Amino acid sequence: MEFETRIGKSTKESIEVHGYDLAEQLIGNITLADMAFLGAKHRKPSEEESQMLNALLIAICEHGFTPSSISARLTYLGAPEAVQAAVAAGLLGAGTVYFGAMEYVSEMLQNAFRQHGEEKSIEELAATVIKERKEQGLQLPGFGHHIHKPVDPRTPKLFALAEELGFLRKHSKLLLEMHKQFCEEKGKQITLNVTGAIGAIMSDMEIDYRLVKSFAVAARAVGLVGHIAEEIEKGRQESVAQQLFEYVENHTDYRS
Amino acid sequence: MEFETRIGKSTKESIEVHGYDLAEQLIGNITLADMAFLGAKHRKPSEEESQMLNALLIAICEHGFTPSSISARLTYLGAPEAVQAAVAAGLLGAGTVYFGAMEYVSEMLQNAFRQHGEEKSIEELAATVIKERKEQGLQLPGFGHHIHKPVDPRTPKLFALAEELGFLRKHSKLLLEMHKQFCEEKGKQITLNVTGAIGAIMSDMEIDYRLVKSFAVAARAVGLVGHIAEEIEKGRQESVAQQLFEYVENHTDYRS
Amino acid sequence: MEFETRIGKSTKESIEVHGYDLAEQLIGNITLADMAFLGAKHRKPSEEESQMLNALLIAICEHGFTPSSISARLTYLGAPEAVQAAVAAGLLGAGTVYFGAMEYVSEMLQNAFRQHGEEKSIEELAATVIKERKEQGLQLPGFGHHIHKPVDPRTPKLFALAEELGFLRKHSKLLLEMHKQFCEEKGKQITLNVTGAIGAIMSDMEIDYRLVKSFAVAARAVGLVGHIAEEIEKGRQESVAQQLFEYVENHTDYRS
Amino acid sequence: MEFETRIGKSTKESIEVHGYDLAEQLIGNITLADMAFLGAKHRKPSEEESQMLNALLIAICEHGFTPSSISARLTYLGAPEAVQAAVAAGLLGAGTVYFGAMEYVSEMLQNAFRQHGEEKSIEELAATVIKERKEQGLQLPGFGHHIHKPVDPRTPKLFALAEELGFLRKHSKLLLEMHKQFCEEKGKQITLNVTGAIGAIMSDMEIDYRLVKSFAVAARAVGLVGHIAEEIEKGRQESVAQQLFEYVENHTDYRS
Repeated sequence: MEFETRIGKSTKESIEVHGYDLAEQLIGNITLADMAFLGAKHRKPSEEESQMLNALLIAICEHGFTPSSISARLTYLGAPEAVQAAVAAGLLGAGTVYFGAMEYVSEMLQNAFRQHGEEKSIEELAATVIKERKEQGLQLPGFGHHIHKPVDPRTPKLFALAEELGFLRKHSKLLLEMHKQFCEEKGKQITLNVTGAIGAIMSDMEIDYRLVKSFAVAARAVGLVGHIAEEIEKGRQESVAQQLFEYVENHTDYRS
Repeated sequence: MEFETRIGKSTKESIEVHGYDLAEQLIGNITLADMAFLGAKHRKPSEEESQMLNALLIAICEHGFTPSSISARLTYLGAPEAVQAAVAAGLLGAGTVYFGAMEYVSEMLQNAFRQHGEEKSIEELAATVIKERKEQGLQLPGFGHHIHKPVDPRTPKLFALAEELGFLRKHSKLLLEMHKQFCEEKGKQITLNVTGAIGAIMSDMEIDYRLVKSFAVAARAVGLVGHIAEEIEKGRQESVAQQLFEYVENHTDYRS
Repeated sequence: MEFETRIGKSTKESIEVHGYDLAEQLIGNITLADMAFLGAKHRKPSEEESQMLNALLIAICEHGFTPSSISARLTYLGAPEAVQAAVAAGLLGAGTVYFGAMEYVSEMLQNAFRQHGEEKSIEELAATVIKERKEQGLQLPGFGHHIHKPVDPRTPKLFALAEELGFLRKHSKLLLEMHKQFCEEKGKQITLNVTGAIGAIMSDMEIDYRLVKSFAVAARAVGLVGHIAEEIEKGRQESVAQQLFEYVENHTDYRS
Repeated sequence: MEFETRIGKSTKESIEVHGYDLAEQLIGNITLADMAFLGAKHRKPSEEESQMLNALLIAICEHGFTPSSISARLTYLGAPEAVQAAVAAGLLGAGTVYFGAMEYVSEMLQNAFRQHGEEKSIEELAATVIKERKEQGLQLPGFGHHIHKPVDPRTPKLFALAEELGFLRKHSKLLLEMHKQFCEEKGKQITLNVTGAIGAIMSDMEIDYRLVKSFAVAARAVGLVGHIAEEIEKGRQESVAQQLFEYVENHTDYRS
């Protein structure tokens, strides 16, 4: 049995990745983010796709002191010799609660066109999707933010870039229309957050919604480098993880 | 107590990451790889640094069917709903055996200058380091490759880029000289592999050796997107993970 | 702020875990499995509960060469210095596909009584649950096995023990009745598998279905000791992980 | 190629694990901890071995609010649907800093007899090992505790059990003698901590030091059930993880 794969091919003298010679055509010619695109689509991105993808992944890669980065730092504190474990621990919290939204947005938007075709106007389709989700008891992902109100500063920036680069297409238009109708219905401005923008634009870049979270997780791994760097830089005793651990120890009755 | 951090600062209207306004100065202006640089050095890379870093991370991000990517695929097979777990599992094998070399190369090179100062000639220093490691019973990391002999195609490409972009500095020169002396001593051409090139050039970019592996792990997370994409694309029954699992089941006496 | 926890309390001289003195009342008096029970219920299990729980966890802890144990072995191959990462990688594939069933069984059974009360006869309730799930397009978890047909040898053993120890109660009776009706409907004997038995008996031990998988994951960690032990025992070159890795390398066109 | 394994063998009707019929000889007859012993030694433990092993694993399985359990809780907060990821994250911090000691103790003790044979008196051997480690700049693992001074309550309990059950053998005697000499040298009572006791007694049970940490990691997975149970019980808003996350958010300038 041979395992069929489009990942790569190699000989003694050369390495081919997704059909491109790694040394001659990829190294020095594309960006790291493009490698994820290549993995997903089996072709190099265009210049516009590369710019857009880098922008999207930058918007999501650093997310502050969430359970993810705190776990990465705490894991580093216990196992500094295995930095791969710290990064892994930092990714493991990327579940439904703090990370799923951009996947759900892209799923909702991609399914809207899959189920209802292309014939409805964007206005009609937006109304339909809102109505359907309400009937199914589902929330609208991508809306709301506990800090950035009424505007998430990343959202207009990403949509402006998408327009400039040619990715403000049907999925983005549908989400923007849904946002408009949703705010009208609520009678106030609800934040269209960064996960909404990313889910919509990734859909307009024709990235399958089942892959959206993989991109986001990879971007987060890049962001975790900064958190580990800070732990190293401050040194064990002054590190955020050490301070946090001490704080917890001093605020429970239990140390072992 | 306040946690001091240089990672970021945010208000209702803006997000600052490492001193830069995320929406205004980073999104659309830098590449994903630059975010790791920013995390490590608290400043945006120069154009040359960005190009070099992207090249280095591309060279390491996709590594074929190693224990890492196989574990990621197998984990995806069991838990497709938690793609973060698949990526994490794929990183966890990045330990001393298959992934440590670029860290050890940079540690060796950075320590060489730290311990012996800058006064010795590169020739003398190379001889000293080779001799010291031999006395300590330590191998020379970065040399040898089981497939790419006598040249790893990535190595000359990376050093050529490093020269062009101004990063062929003392650490790279030391490693190249060590390689020359080592081959002379062995009387044959030993491969200077990609991990050697990366460890040396990262050192010449002034990245602390303790952080080198974090960069590599983050790059690997990007590479894993392609493996997960292929699992999704082929579908469960045809996937590499499923075939592999069946192969193992059919070649042991034990199924449970 | 104090973190309220029932986990434990400690002083210079003593450690209390869930209200028991660790050195005086737990060490030497209970089994490892009982510690999970203690964590879940804040009391030591009775002798019968302890026997039953140990039996259930033994039935699930070793599961052969599934994606989980293969990932653990492969991760150990790459990072033998970080055995915690190997165990973790081995757990990460315990998702919906290969591990979820015992959780879904317990959820189904516990919800059946929660939603329909205690008034229906077991026969009626079984028929109702089967009908409801069919209407909702949901499979019946706990039924079927690709190898052990028509009987999973673990199932009658566990139910016999449950009867002997007093845990063959309403949840088990409901599942057994559902199994009977399901086989009648299909006109053939379908395996009632080990995950069904575990989910039912755990429910009869009054373990919340949301915790069932935690128990199973912990048991699996115990089982992984044997896999790592075998990797160590055989040595790198002869290990299953190494052979598997070589097999994959030799059956793709790609090595890097 | 067949994969040779001693893990198990199965047919349609039966499952054999390490040479025992799972349903007939293991389920209902041994404890969960014994399954780890079986994996390591390919035989069931004696009654004494089982009691001792359960005691050792109970002593280490619950360790309070360390980076490990905090990471598990935080991961659960973000990904409650993937409890395996929470357990895995909780294990990943089990590295050199907070968890390695029992492995290092057993390595030190087992190597002492391997290198110096059985001819020296325990007193001489203890003095030799202390002297050698000092010369090599190595610390003595197993000594000292930041809370339990001068006695770790678990240590005398475990050694008393070991004596009763016949496991107070040469490795334990060597460690106790080293402790005596070390305290004399320091002129004060230094704690002989629980990791020392575990490392010594596991050595006296003839468990290879390379496997000691696997046992400990598996025990910790069992302990994590209690932490996840508490998160579930308190509910998201009141959970320790949520409170901790909020605390961090409120004590940095950065939320994203």
